[in-house]
Amino acid sequence: MSWLDAVKFDASGLVPAIAQDAATGEILMVAWMDRDALLRTVETGTAHYYSRSRGRPWMKGEESGHTQQVQSVSLDCDGDVLRLAIEQVGGIACHTGRRSCFFRVLRDGDWVETLPVLKDPASIYRKI
Amino acid sequence: MSWLDAVKFDASGLVPAIAQDAATGEILMVAWMDRDALLRTVETGTAHYYSRSRGRPWMKGEESGHTQQVQSVSLDCDGDVLRLAIEQVGGIACHTGRRSCFFRVLRDGDWVETLPVLKDPASIYRKI
Repeated sequence: MSWLDAVKFDASGLVPAIAQDAATGEILMVAWMDRDALLRTVETGTAHYYSRSRGRPWMKGEESGHTQQVQSVSLDCDGDVLRLAIEQVGGIACHTGRRSCFFRVLRDGDWVETLPVLKDPASIYRKI
Repeated sequence: MSWLDAVKFDASGLVPAIAQDAATGEILMVAWMDRDALLRTVETGTAHYYSRSRGRPWMKGEESGHTQQVQSVSLDCDGDVLRLAIEQVGGIACHTGRRSCFFRVLRDGDWVETLPVLKDPASIYRKI
């Protein structure tokens, strides 16, 4: 696993990972990975992250079904940011039910929402 | 400046910012912004960041001339990551002389370089 040595995890053992739509180039979300999440991602081809709020690794889509199929993993020049080229299952990456987490754009001193809610989050995360 | 209240700077007063080519969608680099760098970016339309190593704000391209003209600023759902849609002056965002900092892709357990060096860094940063 010598490729892991090139990845510079921060003092908390984490590195940010950008999930980018492999087909459109749209940036869908940014989350954190620890070493284990990165290994699971590479081994399974499905994106895994580390939840700082829950204090544990998680597979994206483990509750919602909106998993991410990873086509490639890139590393930046400093080794401290990852980029994943992904296919977003279900077309919804954001927990708000939008395609992308980056749905607010600054215009004339205000954040303007630019993406519609495709699915009610209550129905996305409803327990069966 | 109430729009600034939506931006959640971390304990160090910083937030990561992704610079994405506004025309192609290519992710060019990720750097950090403090409140001042973000304000300068919005006010001038030219990307400013905060250098953690140098401990001060800097204008991207202040030495190299490879400035970034900002077309839009987006904020993610959690308010803790920014995305800049930019035009990269000179076509080189990375200090290694490549178009993008994300020039290494993981293939069969090794990082493979996928982008050429367009300009020798020694000539980019040569003091006149």
